[in-house]
Amino acid sequence: MHFLEILIKKRNGRKLSPGEINYTVSNYTAGNIPDYQMAAWLMAVYFRGLDEQETAALTAAMAGSGQILKVAPGRGAFIDKHSTGGVGDGTSLVLAPLVAAAGVPVLMVSGRGLGHTGGTLDKLESVPGLRTDLTAARALRQVRCIGVAMIGQTAQLAPADKKIYALRDATGTVENISLICASILSKKIAVGIKGLVLDVKCGNGAFMKDFPGACKLAGLLMKIGRARGLKSKVLVTDMNQPLGNAIGNSLEIAQALEVLQGRGPDDFRELTLALGAEMLILGKKAKDKQTAITVLSRLLSTGQALNKFREMIKAQGGKIDKLPSAKYKTSILAKKGGYIRSFDTCAIGLTATLLGAGRQTKEDRVDPAAGIWLNKKLGDRVVPGEVLGEFHYNRTLPLKAIEQRFVQAITIGSDRPTVKPLIMERW
Amino acid sequence: MHFLEILIKKRNGRKLSPGEINYTVSNYTAGNIPDYQMAAWLMAVYFRGLDEQETAALTAAMAGSGQILKVAPGRGAFIDKHSTGGVGDGTSLVLAPLVAAAGVPVLMVSGRGLGHTGGTLDKLESVPGLRTDLTAARALRQVRCIGVAMIGQTAQLAPADKKIYALRDATGTVENISLICASILSKKIAVGIKGLVLDVKCGNGAFMKDFPGACKLAGLLMKIGRARGLKSKVLVTDMNQPLGNAIGNSLEIAQALEVLQGRGPDDFRELTLALGAEMLILGKKAKDKQTAITVLSRLLSTGQALNKFREMIKAQGGKIDKLPSAKYKTSILAKKGGYIRSFDTCAIGLTATLLGAGRQTKEDRVDPAAGIWLNKKLGDRVVPGEVLGEFHYNRTLPLKAIEQRFVQAITIGSDRPTVKPLIMERW
Repeated sequence: MHFLEILIKKRNGRKLSPGEINYTVSNYTAGNIPDYQMAAWLMAVYFRGLDEQETAALTAAMAGSGQILKVAPGRGAFIDKHSTGGVGDGTSLVLAPLVAAAGVPVLMVSGRGLGHTGGTLDKLESVPGLRTDLTAARALRQVRCIGVAMIGQTAQLAPADKKIYALRDATGTVENISLICASILSKKIAVGIKGLVLDVKCGNGAFMKDFPGACKLAGLLMKIGRARGLKSKVLVTDMNQPLGNAIGNSLEIAQALEVLQGRGPDDFRELTLALGAEMLILGKKAKDKQTAITVLSRLLSTGQALNKFREMIKAQGGKIDKLPSAKYKTSILAKKGGYIRSFDTCAIGLTATLLGAGRQTKEDRVDPAAGIWLNKKLGDRVVPGEVLGEFHYNRTLPLKAIEQRFVQAITIGSDRPTVKPLIMERW
Repeated sequence: MHFLEILIKKRNGRKLSPGEINYTVSNYTAGNIPDYQMAAWLMAVYFRGLDEQETAALTAAMAGSGQILKVAPGRGAFIDKHSTGGVGDGTSLVLAPLVAAAGVPVLMVSGRGLGHTGGTLDKLESVPGLRTDLTAARALRQVRCIGVAMIGQTAQLAPADKKIYALRDATGTVENISLICASILSKKIAVGIKGLVLDVKCGNGAFMKDFPGACKLAGLLMKIGRARGLKSKVLVTDMNQPLGNAIGNSLEIAQALEVLQGRGPDDFRELTLALGAEMLILGKKAKDKQTAITVLSRLLSTGQALNKFREMIKAQGGKIDKLPSAKYKTSILAKKGGYIRSFDTCAIGLTATLLGAGRQTKEDRVDPAAGIWLNKKLGDRVVPGEVLGEFHYNRTLPLKAIEQRFVQAITIGSDRPTVKPLIMERW
């Protein structure tokens, strides 16, 4: 088999066999296929697509490219949750301890932020001392002991995904649903979890801008997950505004602490309960949504979820009472009054990145304390001079330009808009 | 400017500015854009295409990536001829000295064979001692002295083309007319020639299989050449059978010697005169085709063209009387009688490659003496047991399998077919 033949076959729009896909993944991971040929293959896939069988084969090959964790029986089936990425979406921070507190073991493998989106790993690491680079063995032990661990992808877990993702990011081949699907599911399969709740974000702050595209990805994730023995539930949720009020790493940790005490922003809490309920059902700790939400709400109001969070942070070496805060805070005021009619959510995310909360290139270091506290949400009334948001930052920055970008990303009009439901579709 | 933005712009089907194309070519040549990003760009170009303005910008950027030769005035405008590649097409070997003998200075920059096609450089190098790696300065001097030089692409001439072509070859991005056009013309422009006769091959032995595709490439070559100050004439010619009788390097030199003495196969001679006439007209040494053909025929029959060929071979260090011949010769006999109805020309070319005449990978060495002498052409009558062709080779080979491949590539039927004209279109 020659890779050039496989590449030309896909370029010509023909279907690849599981053997050809396996050959591609294993030889690329082993370094036998050079980056430039793989880049051409990825671009051919971008244009020609992969069908369900090809996507399933790709997912399996990527999952099998490294270690497959064997979760010891006895503590129930491990459950994970994954979001396709948005702005202010720190629900994982709350969900992992909350669901663990309900008795469902959670081993969550998270990623870093890139572009306008945040990443759970960056948020966790804003807690001083906290380690996310646990070995698989140690993470499994932690789940057995305290029911929850949140880690980053290790070199042993789906190394093909790590290598392919880095290449996609550099070659303009991120936006293909088969490649997205295989990337998400391969890691989950390698970790050995049995159930997965997926939050497919949809809107101007998400990778999937439109509803049909998001539904297509959601459907594919369901089917491919099922084909690989992974019970999945997918929610398509709105990302036409940041979730909650906090955008930035330690700000989102602070907000998560609020939610874990039964407070926090409504939309953030609503989504957390909806996703958590599905995790409980998949983990067989609740038989329906209503029961699950009652259980979860109690765990929040009684402080049990917060305790589990503190337990996890401590187990991973973090000092939650030493959360960093920014040296400078600047309030951004509304110049006109009316109602918040729309956000350019991607631009809001990029504004936070410019303040230091995210990376413009993969080599950039994030500032854990930087970010935006957003005081207004879609449909809120604003009077001139009122605070729209607060910038948190430590560096010397071209503040006027960043403020302008932020203000331009928020449309204020005279009519109150109809705010659409947060949860758009369930699969 | 970031290359990833240019890449994504083209991937999304948008038109690139001349500045963006220049940035791409100059930074790739300088090593600032990695191969994997350029490979993704080339695949995006394969799917999205480049329009005429983009193709003109690409051609200019590639031509300008190295030295642009300045042809000293006084000996007339240099003329070149280029073929898009076929099987048995050794017309350049005859045309360069023939047209030079008519007083038109010829500086021909040729390439090597790859896949099923032959390359003029490989053919020339089958002459013992002959050098094709002359510096540009030395080649120009030779043209000033004896009127003709045939060389390979130097590191100084259009280095972007050399680097991009190697990448296209390895990434399945050869078959795009804009990339083909820019590759051909950039070298010619860098050499500083003023007129170019292009032979666009069309048929099952050519890269362009169908007539509309060949015409599209021909039209683009004309337009882009003209836009860059290069007077061009394009002929679309049939490549549904090998040209002439010889396929292989020293066999084609031997055939060229025949043609240079006014003999040789009809089709080879017809095409040589047609292309040569256009070169004479572009070089202002004849005012119409009929006059040109009369002049050229006389140069062949009087031996003046042959003398010019010998002079050129000698100037480049070659010993034409020491042409290598193969140790083994095997005649392949017809098993059935009838008329030659069709050739799978690509398969015939690959058969010659398997005998050692060509390369299967770029690292392979060609055997100068290996090849096929084809005794029968389209429309010829064959009786059972008659010789279809003769294999020339030096290595131990799986001869039965190669013979089978050769025989299967020739269709013999009971009706005499209508043989289409060799010259299909003129532009």
